[in-house]
Amino acid sequence: MSERLKGNILVTGTNRGIGLELVKQLAEKTGEESHIYACCREPEGVRAEALRDLATQYPGKITIIKLDTSDEDSISGAVRAVSKQIGAAGLNLLINNAAINKPALPGSLAATGKKDMMEVYETNVAGPFLLVKMFLPLLQRAAERDTPEKDKGDKMSCRRSAIINISTLISSIEKCPETFHMAQMYPYRTSKAALNMLTRCQAEEFKTHNILVTSIHPGWVRTEMGGEEAPLTTQDSVVGMLSVMSSLSNKDSGMLLDWQGNMIPW
Amino acid sequence: MSERLKGNILVTGTNRGIGLELVKQLAEKTGEESHIYACCREPEGVRAEALRDLATQYPGKITIIKLDTSDEDSISGAVRAVSKQIGAAGLNLLINNAAINKPALPGSLAATGKKDMMEVYETNVAGPFLLVKMFLPLLQRAAERDTPEKDKGDKMSCRRSAIINISTLISSIEKCPETFHMAQMYPYRTSKAALNMLTRCQAEEFKTHNILVTSIHPGWVRTEMGGEEAPLTTQDSVVGMLSVMSSLSNKDSGMLLDWQGNMIPW
Ligand SMILES: NC(=O)c1ccc[n+]([C@@H]2O[C@H](COP(=O)([O-])OP(=O)(O)OC[C@H]3O[C@@H](n4cnc5c(N)ncnc54)[C@H](OP(=O)(O)O)[C@@H]3O)[C@@H](O)[C@H]2O)c1
Ligand SMILES: NC(=O)c1ccc[n+]([C@@H]2O[C@H](COP(=O)([O-])OP(=O)(O)OC[C@H]3O[C@@H](n4cnc5c(N)ncnc54)[C@H](OP(=O)(O)O)[C@@H]3O)[C@@H](O)[C@H]2O)c1
Repeated sequence: MSERLKGNILVTGTNRGIGLELVKQLAEKTGEESHIYACCREPEGVRAEALRDLATQYPGKITIIKLDTSDEDSISGAVRAVSKQIGAAGLNLLINNAAINKPALPGSLAATGKKDMMEVYETNVAGPFLLVKMFLPLLQRAAERDTPEKDKGDKMSCRRSAIINISTLISSIEKCPETFHMAQMYPYRTSKAALNMLTRCQAEEFKTHNILVTSIHPGWVRTEMGGEEAPLTTQDSVVGMLSVMSSLSNKDSGMLLDWQGNMIPW
Repeated sequence: MSERLKGNILVTGTNRGIGLELVKQLAEKTGEESHIYACCREPEGVRAEALRDLATQYPGKITIIKLDTSDEDSISGAVRAVSKQIGAAGLNLLINNAAINKPALPGSLAATGKKDMMEVYETNVAGPFLLVKMFLPLLQRAAERDTPEKDKGDKMSCRRSAIINISTLISSIEKCPETFHMAQMYPYRTSKAALNMLTRCQAEEFKTHNILVTSIHPGWVRTEMGGEEAPLTTQDSVVGMLSVMSSLSNKDSGMLLDWQGNMIPW
């Protein structure tokens, strides 16, 4: 890892899978001045127990925030809660990690209905769209703050102000023929291609604000979504992704990279 | 134009703009054995007058079909109506043309809400997804029929069985930085990138059925959507697109081409 991540960092979908591991490693690897806003749908629910335990292990470093990315009011509520606590430093890094894949694998055409198309888009694209729109003032605040000499000027980074959209290799329209026959996943594939377009649009829009925006593919990871056959542990995937995030600069904004930093074609 | 189009052809969104011109030129240029299913939301409405006039000019050649692509029941109804009439020949060409762009141009981030994201996706992506799923038996019927000697085997074409998704240059994630600052259009851009993924998935899925699937960009065209500054008339755009469609073959399935046949990167 080049210079390590720091500042105020928000991650969505953190009660399990890759999101939980992101919070764990961020809590371990960032300094005292850093704070993690770990979002999940049901902070008090049984499925958030591991996250609550993690927050207990790092007293004062992790705030659990209630957030359902498919619900506009829930997003507003999360923005209010974070704004109250975050103060003048603003938000340095927003990681859009929460996502769903429906219907169950292999997600054939016959098994897929309109409801699947709409719900997957709502969580995977409309959610990140709104979240960024509503957190923009806090991201701008961070981007405009005094930064160390070498981060000044137009230098963008995940330490200064950035949005990471967790995408997937399966979002690549170019590479679709290589993966399509294993699992069709129409709603997921179309949503993640749309998410890449969102990354590219946001990168253009926020360039003048010095906010970096990059899509990252975590690899094929053993989680509820990735399944048991996946070759990567959440630990290895997140080590890789945090290393990539910490080295991102202007040239990477608006791109799709994998957890090892390799570029993936659209 | 190489060999001209023929057979049973269905077009969505045909009461005005590019869709209306597609029906006009298809009625003019196809032979007697061809039939055009011209779909629109309100066949009896004031906004379908030009289409009704056109149908009167070509007696027995154009059937107007009621179809709102954002409404699942309406799609089922259209499939039933077409199935009843179409007979053993099946459907040779389905053109997904209907689409919306919201909010009003330039469609800034500030002006765009969740409702815009969801509605544009519903019409521009979920609609074509469902339409193809429901018309698949008729497309397969056409693909399996006896075809002229040179169209046999694995030769795909718009005369045999094909889906054309009307996309746009603005769908190109790669080219986003070139056009973003004129008009942001988050919902439209994300929806059309998703539509391109749909094209690519459908091309893979239907390859073994010999159904061709291609995205085509009509150029920047003077219509309600394109606006008055657009350089192209619907007439020139459609002459170009029909010429491209009539020359498509296996190698073009799963691609994004413009109205002059040039490839556009994802
Ligand atoms: N695993 C892989 O192999 C793989 C590969 C490529 C990309 N990815 C991407 O990596 C990211 C994380 O995936 P994962 O493997 O960790 O998936 P996962 O194990 O299924 O976890 C998904 C997380 O997202 C949350 N979530 C879902 N819908 C939500 C909503 N509406 N609001 C808030 N949170 C929501 C879930 O919370 P609940 O417990 O409340 O449902 C859960 O915490 C996703 O963006 C995914 O597309 C994963
Ligand atoms: N014009 C351009 O410069 C341009 C450039 C690139 C791509 N395109 C694409 O070309 C296609 C045609 O565009 P256009 O310029 O002709 O647009 P347009 O003038 O706005 O016409 C759109 C057509 O789609 C129909 N439509 C909209 N929503 C519908 C729904 N839910 N169900 C059924 N029909 C619906 C409209 O019917 P109503 O009258 O009922 O609304 C109308 O017939 C679109 O896919 C567009 O994205 C256009």
